[in-house]
Amino acid sequence: MEKQYKFEKNYSKSTPTHMLGEKSKIFGPIRDHMKYDFRNSYPAPELLPVSNILKSLEKELTIVGSSKNLYPDPQGYLPFRELISETLHLKRQMDISPENILLTDGSGQGIHLVAEALINPGDAVIVDDFVYGGTLWSLRRFHANIYGVSSDQNGMIPEKLQETIEKIHSNNQLCKLIYLIPTFQNPQGTTMNINRRKEILSIAQNSGIPIIEDDGVANMRYEGQHLPSIQSLDDTGITTFVGSYSKMVVPGFRLGYLVASDSILKIIEIIKGSRGVNKFSAFAVYRFAKDFLENHLKVLNFELKTRRNTMFEALENNFDKKYTSWSTPEGGLYTWLEVAPEIDLKKIQLQSEKLEVSYDLGTNFSPDGSEKNSCARLCFSGCSNEEIITGISILSNLIHKD
Amino acid sequence: MEKQYKFEKNYSKSTPTHMLGEKSKIFGPIRDHMKYDFRNSYPAPELLPVSNILKSLEKELTIVGSSKNLYPDPQGYLPFRELISETLHLKRQMDISPENILLTDGSGQGIHLVAEALINPGDAVIVDDFVYGGTLWSLRRFHANIYGVSSDQNGMIPEKLQETIEKIHSNNQLCKLIYLIPTFQNPQGTTMNINRRKEILSIAQNSGIPIIEDDGVANMRYEGQHLPSIQSLDDTGITTFVGSYSKMVVPGFRLGYLVASDSILKIIEIIKGSRGVNKFSAFAVYRFAKDFLENHLKVLNFELKTRRNTMFEALENNFDKKYTSWSTPEGGLYTWLEVAPEIDLKKIQLQSEKLEVSYDLGTNFSPDGSEKNSCARLCFSGCSNEEIITGISILSNLIHKD
Repeated sequence: MEKQYKFEKNYSKSTPTHMLGEKSKIFGPIRDHMKYDFRNSYPAPELLPVSNILKSLEKELTIVGSSKNLYPDPQGYLPFRELISETLHLKRQMDISPENILLTDGSGQGIHLVAEALINPGDAVIVDDFVYGGTLWSLRRFHANIYGVSSDQNGMIPEKLQETIEKIHSNNQLCKLIYLIPTFQNPQGTTMNINRRKEILSIAQNSGIPIIEDDGVANMRYEGQHLPSIQSLDDTGITTFVGSYSKMVVPGFRLGYLVASDSILKIIEIIKGSRGVNKFSAFAVYRFAKDFLENHLKVLNFELKTRRNTMFEALENNFDKKYTSWSTPEGGLYTWLEVAPEIDLKKIQLQSEKLEVSYDLGTNFSPDGSEKNSCARLCFSGCSNEEIITGISILSNLIHKD
Repeated sequence: MEKQYKFEKNYSKSTPTHMLGEKSKIFGPIRDHMKYDFRNSYPAPELLPVSNILKSLEKELTIVGSSKNLYPDPQGYLPFRELISETLHLKRQMDISPENILLTDGSGQGIHLVAEALINPGDAVIVDDFVYGGTLWSLRRFHANIYGVSSDQNGMIPEKLQETIEKIHSNNQLCKLIYLIPTFQNPQGTTMNINRRKEILSIAQNSGIPIIEDDGVANMRYEGQHLPSIQSLDDTGITTFVGSYSKMVVPGFRLGYLVASDSILKIIEIIKGSRGVNKFSAFAVYRFAKDFLENHLKVLNFELKTRRNTMFEALENNFDKKYTSWSTPEGGLYTWLEVAPEIDLKKIQLQSEKLEVSYDLGTNFSPDGSEKNSCARLCFSGCSNEEIITGISILSNLIHKD
């Protein structure tokens, strides 16, 4: 019966096919859960503090009462922004007024807003050689030319960054953004040390290119000390910082924030309008952050560390370091596996998924969408220790058989 | 200290100044509450079912348990989409699969997504002669040419709509959308009867112009019967329908939905990506809708009816019908006041706000942003009966003194 409406905007042309996914339905279901699921970059269900979140919401609603605070708020619940300001001071050495913080619908919304604010179609954006798919999605959405820069165990390599900027300029493109996840980079798990942070920042400042610093899962640190953020080292205001409470509380509840200079926030206000973040989540997560988060992080990080160690042990027991390597992050939810080029992890995935073992291929994190089949992200956060041991053993058997 | 980053996108040029508001801060605070606040288009704080919402969330989280349902979901919690499908069948005579429903961050996000999907800069969009500011904001955001069409007590006038379409075509513009709030139009309070719905739909179908039907506050009906939606009368799939639970539950909790054809949903999936609506709200509002909403609406609608009647009585006691008129909706949160052209409600507002009486001027709802100072929206929903009586009396004194 449906008369096809002809769209004047050509979405199929402007949209890379890898943005469309391989879904049979329009909005695909959540990916089928597998028994040994190394794709799942969330804490396992038993690690979610559901009952304390409920307590927190109840308490905060009692405090707020039947007041105007129940109504929408464009910038986000002020007590929460004040708490974020204090926390960033303590943990990231940042000196930020709550006026420069915007609550967002996860950190993804923050990245999306900054991309929309700065990027015209064809502008260049610099990222790591492998990078979080949600960010790639936002950058492609605004038709950026995305340049991946090589990294070592300290993250993005300064010389390579400088070369890439020169290449972009020689292509007569404007470079609008450098996107960085300096701590437990997603997917590679690398962390930039303080010197590397300073070197990269200095290049960005000298070239006048804004940075988005994604704090990612930096609070899920179970070894070593918190490092100052790049934003804290930047006295020029070109660094925008995004953070999130979603993964360390309950992922579906989506509560992030963005820290930006006045000039960037002014543009974002135009783009975003007056529609504020969900207040329900803001109340619950704020009160949880005040009353429960420090203890929750202790439990969560202890559990994640155990699972990470199990993963490392399983990798060592099953793989020969001659043809495989993996990153060894001091925190986070995943490690990055690299195998010899003759091993095709895409082909092996076809077999492994029949045995309920799955992982995200390097291709999913590839800035230009090209195939990268000798690397994969292995998340240990969503599996039990037993599942990690069995899953890695199955994977290893398939690789050795290959 | 801040080095000003020069934005390559010229926002000040492409953004009408009325989108920027008159805020001194970047994200202005929620407007100062006034004692007699006829701007507040939300139910008063004492009418918000906060404790039952908490009970609902607790119950639903117990049912869902520690399952994958706690993780993000691109299209929105399926049981809720099933309930929406059933409710729309009962109350709006719509026959919709849950697969064609998308949960959104309030109905505003639905309108915004459809506008983004269809509008190229310079395309024409048709709205009523006065219309909800949030929709105007989204349309301006995508640089639409907005055409207002005159209405009578039955809403948009078909002959005027036809004339406007011809005018748009003679201007060599593409007309991409007709936006309608057929029940308790915001701000005018008018409702389209069934014949008017059919006439407007028929013109849209013959011209091949998609409709967005905004269900607005149609569930806050306290007199008369629910009417079939325009979408239910449309067998061609050009009508997209947006609805919301926010206002009838708790406004800051933002839970709306969009009903669209496969072809529109396919585009929206590309625009929106995989980031789903807040699951916390979805759980709470779904369970509330199942267990408490019908009773809550009885209480809420009784209260709103009382306040509306108080407003009508106060207007009749204070204003001479020779130079004032107001709409008489069978539901909703507001009435539309029109005064003789020699009375300047903008000038009077400067005085009234000193006495804590405020309202939204016609200008705020004007499609081309031109000044409309002889009409205003008066919300009765956010004030007590006593506040309505006193506030209208203050307003009347100022008008008579003028």
